[in-house]
Order: sequence, then C-alpha cells, then structure tokens
Amino acid sequence: MKKIVLFLAATLATPLLHAEEPKPAPNGITLPEGYKNWRLIAVSQRTENQTQRAILGNDLAIEAARAGKTHPWPNGAILAKLSWKQKNSDKFPTAVIPGEFVQADFMVKDDKKFAASGGWGYARWLGMEQKVYDKPDIAQECLGCHGSVKDQDYVFTAPVKLP
Amino acid sequence: MKKIVLFLAATLATPLLHAEEPKPAPNGITLPEGYKNWRLIAVSQRTENQTQRAILGNDLAIEAARAGKTHPWPNGAILAKLSWKQKNSDKFPTAVIPGEFVQADFMVKDDKKFAASGGWGYARWLGMEQKVYDKPDIAQECLGCHGSVKDQDYVFTAPVKLP
Repeated sequence: MKKIVLFLAATLATPLLHAEEPKPAPNGITLPEGYKNWRLIAVSQRTENQTQRAILGNDLAIEAARAGKTHPWPNGAILAKLSWKQKNSDKFPTAVIPGEFVQADFMVKDDKKFAASGGWGYARWLGMEQKVYDKPDIAQECLGCHGSVKDQDYVFTAPVKLP
Repeated sequence: MKKIVLFLAATLATPLLHAEEPKPAPNGITLPEGYKNWRLIAVSQRTENQTQRAILGNDLAIEAARAGKTHPWPNGAILAKLSWKQKNSDKFPTAVIPGEFVQADFMVKDDKKFAASGGWGYARWLGMEQKVYDKPDIAQECLGCHGSVKDQDYVFTAPVKLP
C-alpha cells in the first residue's frame, strides 16, 4: 500500500511541478499573463542564429503601433518577442518555418521605474519550461544592442504595414 | 443653407469613400472582419519570393490549434496568411524584417459549402488597397500546392510550439 501511495504521489506531483508559475525576473518583472493571446506587431528573422520571431504587443502597445505613436512608446506598453529555431519545411521546398521554441523576451515601458535603462525594463524566460533568465545585469546586456536604436525609443521593431 | 448642406455632404462622403468595403471573392467569401486582430498561429518565410508571413486564426482556429485538433480543422475555422516583402534591417545587420505589405490570403473551413475543394474555401486580397483576387478558379490554383498536403487537411502551417 505504501508503495502504491508513493507511486501515486510521484505521478500526481509531475504535472503540478510543470504548472508552477515561472519565477519573476531580478528586476521584478513577472511573466505577463496572457501574452500568447496578444496581437501581432511584426515578424522577424535573425540569420546569425537561425531564429524566426513574432513580436506581439499588449493592448496599449497595439494601439500605439496602429496610431503610429511609438516615438516614444507610451508607458504601460509591453512588447513580447517570441523566438523559434527555424527549419526547412519538409512539405514545401522553399519554405522556412518555426521549429523548437527558444524564448520569450519582453520590454516593459515605464519611464519612471526603468529610468536608469532608458525607460524600458527587460526580461526573458527560456524554453518551453519558461525558466527565468536571472542575470541581474540584463538591462545592460540588452542595451548593448538596443542602445544603438535610442532614436527609435530603444526598439528595433517597426510595426508591420497593414491595410 | 443649401451650401452648408452640400459642404457637409461632401465632407462626410470623403471618409466613406476611403472606407469602401473590399469586394467579395468570386466564391462569395467576404474579407473577414477584424482579421488584423486575430491571434498568432505561426510565422513563415518563402525564400523563392523573399516574403515573410504571419499566419493568424479566428477564435475557432486558435482553439483548435492549441488543443491540437487540426486533423481536420473544425468547420468555421479561418486561417489568414499575411505576407510582406522581406528586407534587411538597416539597424541590425543580421536581421531580416517585413517591408511592403503584399497580400492577405484566407482559408475558410466549411466541409459542406466547399466540399468540391477539399472542405476549404480560398480567397485573397492584394496590397494595401485590398483588391480582391478575382480569378474564378482560385480553388484549383491553390490546390495546385495545397493538394500535396491533403494528409494535413490541406494546410501547410503547423501551429507554433508555445509554452
């Protein structure tokens, strides 16, 4: 009986462990709820690491993007960049499509709270298990590249053209 | 008074003209309302014509995609494929990003209405002006490629992996 109970406990514990909330980033940013349902701002591809990306935005970011009011982006706007390792389609010879999920990156606009890093807070969760990227100097790491587009409010992504 | 009425009529007519509805496709499919707000199913790239794509789905399609119930896709599901001409970023040397908007393609699942074309109706609107693609044999044209993935319910796109 003890063995059965132990077996059951182990079996039941597995899904519970998987459903654990991802940890917050060192700067206090928590994984934004419902980000997978956010609307599209753009797509992109990085040739040096063979990833395809979708850039999504929360409602405030989408409103700003569609109104062309992204210089600067408004406080409260959040951008999510979802990345997948790219692969060649085995069904359509010239198509490149997303494979394994790599990470979800976020930029959270708050020009008071994140004044020290250009008005944006940065956070990242890795892989399907959404393991928090917990280096405390993430902002400096991100600004290593994003600093080059200070004139675009530190954002590389231009919202896609839509009819 | 007549002048004022005429002036008002002219002023009011201008935005109405701009807001003219795109014409329906020859098979009766109308441009789905609000498709730009649909959620993400996948992204892709076509190397032979240098386009980047976002594949969005209506609520029924998203539910099916997330539940893995796409063999077959349910009646009522609509897939939208938005395409942009790709270009190299001038801000990040290895990034490829969307340029001009090319077209919006739709697949509408209705296994009764579109039984003759594998259960899907096809429609396309071209460019920023959303000019309907009005060749009456669009289904045959689409099936020229989509027929090769009959075993995937005629859909090339696999929903992206999400945490």
